Amino acid sequence: MGEPGFRPDGTWVGADVPRREDPRLLAGRGRFVDDITLPRMLHAAFVRSTEAHARVTAVDLSEVREVPGVVAAFDAADLGLADITALLDRPAEEFTPTSMPVLARDKVRYVGEPLAVVVATDPYAAEDGVEAAVVEYDPLDPVVTEAAALAAAGTPVHDEAPGNVLVDVSLFATEGIDEVFAAASASAGDVVVTVEANTGRQNALPLETRGVVADWDDRDEQLLVRTCTQVPHQVRTVLARCAGLDEKQVRVTVPDMGGGFGQKCVVGREEIAAAAAARRLRRPVKWIEDRREALTASFLAREQHYTARAAFSADGRILALDTDVVCDMGAYSCYPFTAGIEPLMASAEMPGVYRVPAYRVRGRAVTTNKAPTAPYRGVSRPQYVMVMERLMERAARELGLDAVEVRRRNVITEFPYRGINNVTYDPGSYLESLDLCEQVLRDEGWLSRSGRDRDGRMIGIGFSCFSERTGYGSGAFAQRKMQVVPGFDISQITMDLDGTVTVTTGTLSHGQSHETTFAQIVADRLGIGYDKVKIVQGDTDRITYGWGSFASRSVTIGGSAAAAASVKLGDQLRSIAAHLAGVDIDSTRLDGRGGVRAGDHTYPFAELADVAYLRAHLLPKDVGPGLTATASFDVGGDGTFSNATHGCVVALDPGTGGVEILRYVCVEDCGVAIHPRVVEGQARGGIAQGIAGALFEQVTYDELGQPLAPSFMEYKVPTAAEIPDVRIEHLETPCAFTADGAKGAGEGGTIGAPAAVLNAVNDALRHTGVELDATPIPRAAIFAALSLEEAS
Amino acid sequence: MGEPGFRPDGTWVGADVPRREDPRLLAGRGRFVDDITLPRMLHAAFVRSTEAHARVTAVDLSEVREVPGVVAAFDAADLGLADITALLDRPAEEFTPTSMPVLARDKVRYVGEPLAVVVATDPYAAEDGVEAAVVEYDPLDPVVTEAAALAAAGTPVHDEAPGNVLVDVSLFATEGIDEVFAAASASAGDVVVTVEANTGRQNALPLETRGVVADWDDRDEQLLVRTCTQVPHQVRTVLARCAGLDEKQVRVTVPDMGGGFGQKCVVGREEIAAAAAARRLRRPVKWIEDRREALTASFLAREQHYTARAAFSADGRILALDTDVVCDMGAYSCYPFTAGIEPLMASAEMPGVYRVPAYRVRGRAVTTNKAPTAPYRGVSRPQYVMVMERLMERAARELGLDAVEVRRRNVITEFPYRGINNVTYDPGSYLESLDLCEQVLRDEGWLSRSGRDRDGRMIGIGFSCFSERTGYGSGAFAQRKMQVVPGFDISQITMDLDGTVTVTTGTLSHGQSHETTFAQIVADRLGIGYDKVKIVQGDTDRITYGWGSFASRSVTIGGSAAAAASVKLGDQLRSIAAHLAGVDIDSTRLDGRGGVRAGDHTYPFAELADVAYLRAHLLPKDVGPGLTATASFDVGGDGTFSNATHGCVVALDPGTGGVEILRYVCVEDCGVAIHPRVVEGQARGGIAQGIAGALFEQVTYDELGQPLAPSFMEYKVPTAAEIPDVRIEHLETPCAFTADGAKGAGEGGTIGAPAAVLNAVNDALRHTGVELDATPIPRAAIFAALSLEEAS
Repeated sequence: MGEPGFRPDGTWVGADVPRREDPRLLAGRGRFVDDITLPRMLHAAFVRSTEAHARVTAVDLSEVREVPGVVAAFDAADLGLADITALLDRPAEEFTPTSMPVLARDKVRYVGEPLAVVVATDPYAAEDGVEAAVVEYDPLDPVVTEAAALAAAGTPVHDEAPGNVLVDVSLFATEGIDEVFAAASASAGDVVVTVEANTGRQNALPLETRGVVADWDDRDEQLLVRTCTQVPHQVRTVLARCAGLDEKQVRVTVPDMGGGFGQKCVVGREEIAAAAAARRLRRPVKWIEDRREALTASFLAREQHYTARAAFSADGRILALDTDVVCDMGAYSCYPFTAGIEPLMASAEMPGVYRVPAYRVRGRAVTTNKAPTAPYRGVSRPQYVMVMERLMERAARELGLDAVEVRRRNVITEFPYRGINNVTYDPGSYLESLDLCEQVLRDEGWLSRSGRDRDGRMIGIGFSCFSERTGYGSGAFAQRKMQVVPGFDISQITMDLDGTVTVTTGTLSHGQSHETTFAQIVADRLGIGYDKVKIVQGDTDRITYGWGSFASRSVTIGGSAAAAASVKLGDQLRSIAAHLAGVDIDSTRLDGRGGVRAGDHTYPFAELADVAYLRAHLLPKDVGPGLTATASFDVGGDGTFSNATHGCVVALDPGTGGVEILRYVCVEDCGVAIHPRVVEGQARGGIAQGIAGALFEQVTYDELGQPLAPSFMEYKVPTAAEIPDVRIEHLETPCAFTADGAKGAGEGGTIGAPAAVLNAVNDALRHTGVELDATPIPRAAIFAALSLEEAS
Repeated sequence: MGEPGFRPDGTWVGADVPRREDPRLLAGRGRFVDDITLPRMLHAAFVRSTEAHARVTAVDLSEVREVPGVVAAFDAADLGLADITALLDRPAEEFTPTSMPVLARDKVRYVGEPLAVVVATDPYAAEDGVEAAVVEYDPLDPVVTEAAALAAAGTPVHDEAPGNVLVDVSLFATEGIDEVFAAASASAGDVVVTVEANTGRQNALPLETRGVVADWDDRDEQLLVRTCTQVPHQVRTVLARCAGLDEKQVRVTVPDMGGGFGQKCVVGREEIAAAAAARRLRRPVKWIEDRREALTASFLAREQHYTARAAFSADGRILALDTDVVCDMGAYSCYPFTAGIEPLMASAEMPGVYRVPAYRVRGRAVTTNKAPTAPYRGVSRPQYVMVMERLMERAARELGLDAVEVRRRNVITEFPYRGINNVTYDPGSYLESLDLCEQVLRDEGWLSRSGRDRDGRMIGIGFSCFSERTGYGSGAFAQRKMQVVPGFDISQITMDLDGTVTVTTGTLSHGQSHETTFAQIVADRLGIGYDKVKIVQGDTDRITYGWGSFASRSVTIGGSAAAAASVKLGDQLRSIAAHLAGVDIDSTRLDGRGGVRAGDHTYPFAELADVAYLRAHLLPKDVGPGLTATASFDVGGDGTFSNATHGCVVALDPGTGGVEILRYVCVEDCGVAIHPRVVEGQARGGIAQGIAGALFEQVTYDELGQPLAPSFMEYKVPTAAEIPDVRIEHLETPCAFTADGAKGAGEGGTIGAPAAVLNAVNDALRHTGVELDATPIPRAAIFAALSLEEAS
């Protein structure tokens, strides 16, 4: 671990410096939204639908208002807010816009949907108030499954979408693809393999649930909304539109956050309702989601169904890929990421790290009477990577080839590579990471341990290869025809009189250590200690705009913007020094120790700042007073791609069907790692979530749409006991497009794990002839397969 | 009164639109510092010196800490803060730097000086704690008067200044000036007149006393200081330096303010001490100055002594001016305005509106054992104008000329005018305002009412002419050799998605309606409603830097910066529209109705903002995403000058010596008035304060330095009954240097009033032969003069 100060080589990027966040977080002095207490603060709780699908005939809050401690109760009519509107720049035949009311009015579409907000002097009274609400329903048949949605037999979830399909896109139909499949089927050596895969509905489950503290400020004529969101400017926009305010009348700030994982990158209805109540009451209102709400009524993800088919040549090369993916988006399209996010992501990027010469895909999003979805870490990639990797394994099996070798023959090795999906991939270590991952497991002796171990458990080994588009620039998003194109981000840097700097960013850390990594980036540009750099994030009033943090975009885009702003500031400092020294700016340089060398003289930054602020009459004509610079950054072209190979060793217990992960290896390449330990933390956390999805977690509903996993008794979250130690190896293929060569590292772990675990389980089941293509992998199916074998 | 919306001629500047501040202020929803309440907040009170001059031998707080409710008590040693250092870029023979400890240590220098801060759960307990403090003193002879200070007989106030003189400058000694005086004395027709004038010590007395609420934020690693100050960035700098923090670790915000008048444009010790206590205790600490503290222990002003001499030709033209001014600065030089402010201002600008061909001045600041001083509204100008106007009157009397006519022969009429004081005056209406003021009084019939009225009261009429340098640019301050050169200011503008704008400024309104006037300025530049512009001020984290509001600089400098930023933003909007329309930017214009006309198409701002934020890929190459612009402004050259003539009619009551002001006329010219009613408000308020100084208010001390006016029982503040209705006439000589031609209007009223009132009183006393040259004008002296006359 490094220490604050000047590093001998003058660089902070790449060093595992102590985290700036740790002193407060480790001492319990962080400020999360629930730590915020304000004078006269009230507490909100929500009256929620008990029906999955019903017309609402009455919402009676009169008893609620009599409950001691209750200050107010508002239904949709009381608050009179405009709906949240989902947008996607697609033609009508591809996208059906729907809107989501802040509080449900005439109809409810999932159990847990908010109908009214109760505000009381303490959270207990608010809950008591909720209990006193009387809601009358006229039930409708719920649409609970993808099949039911597509059957479209009963009342549709939304009148606007009679077939319950919100998105239906067909892309990249390579000319002649049917002939390729026909030829492969007819050929003696070539094969066509199919995978029909289902992935379970999952909850991103940040440690900290959602929450908000809002109050109306009469003096600033502003609604101040402290909320845990990944997208504060989006919350501002939606709140302003719903409440009929100017955007400048809304300020969204984000305190410390205990994770988001995408669940907090769409705008929540509760934060809008609580804020509107605060404005109405002119008192602060707090709402903290409880775990039951988090498990049933927040944003979910991951439930997809793939029907995929691939043709392979006899020597194991992919000839064609044809996929149909249906994504169960639940009851609503959210903002800013609509129901389009999952099918479009899957469609656009499924070929992944492989050379696919012919490709066709249909992607659909269906709406059902379940809680709506948000883009959970990885967004479709864990699923389509799983399907691709199953196709690889199946082809290898049918062709009698080694599955790693088949991958080796298909991964992209020449860069930049223009994919069949019209995406240009920047250089990555696709082959190298595969080779190294296999080598590590070989060196550790795992490759020879296939088969039954001494305890009678079946050992299996699985791999997965993937890339992840991270730095989505405006171009990449525009390609997808998003109504909003969250490409760029902005950073502003200011140097104070004392030579220290403050950097404001439009991205924000919800656990990823940006206060440290961004400080490293800026410190390198200016040649100062990273402890002299303060990062300010998550405040709509402090930066012109920010798209926020999602899609592993923060360091690639936000970090590059901060770097660009720093360089501008450095140029200003050099300009002042040149003027004072009477030399040309080309004769100056930042000295890497907090000063500018100009001719024979060294000017410490504080001395230059003294001129820029207190003696502005001494400035050169081309430098204004004050030391500040703003820069934006937008990744050009199609963005940048991180990549990794995961390898996993499992042991299956024939007595229980249980899966133990014996070893997990991740060879990752996110370009230049700003802070390798932070990258490893991201990888480890992502892998744990991927394993959770592969083996444990699933949100289930009964046939009436009642959630069956409303608590941790039913929703099985793995603990440290179930998550293995993970060996992480780094490769580094620097990105040419970003300031420091970083490519983004936030999501990768989650993407590779389900495929690797599923392949390992299937490897362990190889002798049984059973192949499983669903997550979470049903323990009962494993038990059955192994029992069958025992019995045979 | 106008209404929000588009004005027919498309301009807001110059219109008396409804004030943006009024809805909240008139409804009692403003937020002043004492309105701020935070969870766990503590209240501070100060142990203050009971001695004017003493060595402190012991500060015992042990009993304090036992008082119920007291949480902590800190003396200087406990807090360990660095001293506040006064700076002035003058050679050692002209300026003696002294430092002011945040809490007094070894020595106290005035009654009321803070020695320790007591922090308790409520303000009453804090006061009880203060009572329990035991301070032991070793008294020294106090230095209470200017005479005592200059005599330097006892222990000096500061060891560094054995003669008690902190500043001693001799300027502009025109060659041959002594010969001019000698010749005038020797001449039959010419005259030399002298005035020896004293002006009383006064308290600026904002309606809202000083106050602060500070707390340390662990998450942001920042001391958040909400304080009522005119100079938030100065408070930040001083606090950071005193507490050993980086500037970025201090955030100073300013809520609504009930006046400042200069008393809040220096950094207070109590706000530093309270903030340091908050940081130490990790709890919010509030301190609200009580009125007794405000009257005895805050910053005072105005106590000066002039010995002035002027030679006049027989036809009433000034030949030479020679002045000696001694300013009693009290115990300390403050920050950022040192003891230099009063003598330097008087020395540099005393010639005022008159052509003075020869000039010599000596200005001194002496230190005494009285509360220290701040630059109260007008800063020396009320005093030197009074002296100049007395010289005019006296010369007219000796020469047998009409005093108005003498002024008319001397005022500057050709511009730009380079004064004997090396200052270039921009165009003003010096002669026109004098003529008009006299004309108004003539038209109203006052000029013929001199003498005794039907009640036996003596009627008198007095005038004063003055100019006021307002937009001090860096050059003007650098000329004065200030260590800090508060010339420029900065403004940042951002347009949101909805086409409304937020403007952040480094100046701040403490009652001057900047939220309205700045919005008018910006609205005109962009062609939008002024209600679409939000002004953000008083937050060190929201703007790179700001010098704050003083010296009538806000609209001239801050307003010009806001205008410049708006123009830049308008250019960005035009650039985007040109790109979208496929036309050259020269074919575009702001349409004055919230849009850009480009070729045949009109783009509403919201449509352009949609591109700038949500579809940045559609932007032209030379415009970055987001809509924001920053600009700074610094008045070039010697700044700009407002001017006015005041005319006053008084009636003296022979029975009591009382003065009633029968009529008051102000003809003012502050260039273009952004909002004439706001200008009138400034003029009326200033005139009231000027009258207060001329007739009523005085801070007095006994021979031991004990304050004799610690409450409103002793400190006589005029009420509405004593302040006349004021007729205000506007002249408008636009300023060529500022964005809107505005010259600044904050201080003028205060400057002209004492001279006009004093001249009127002397006019009424003319038949007695008595002339008075001191303010507040002693009622006893008037009574005596009139009694003498009655008796004779």
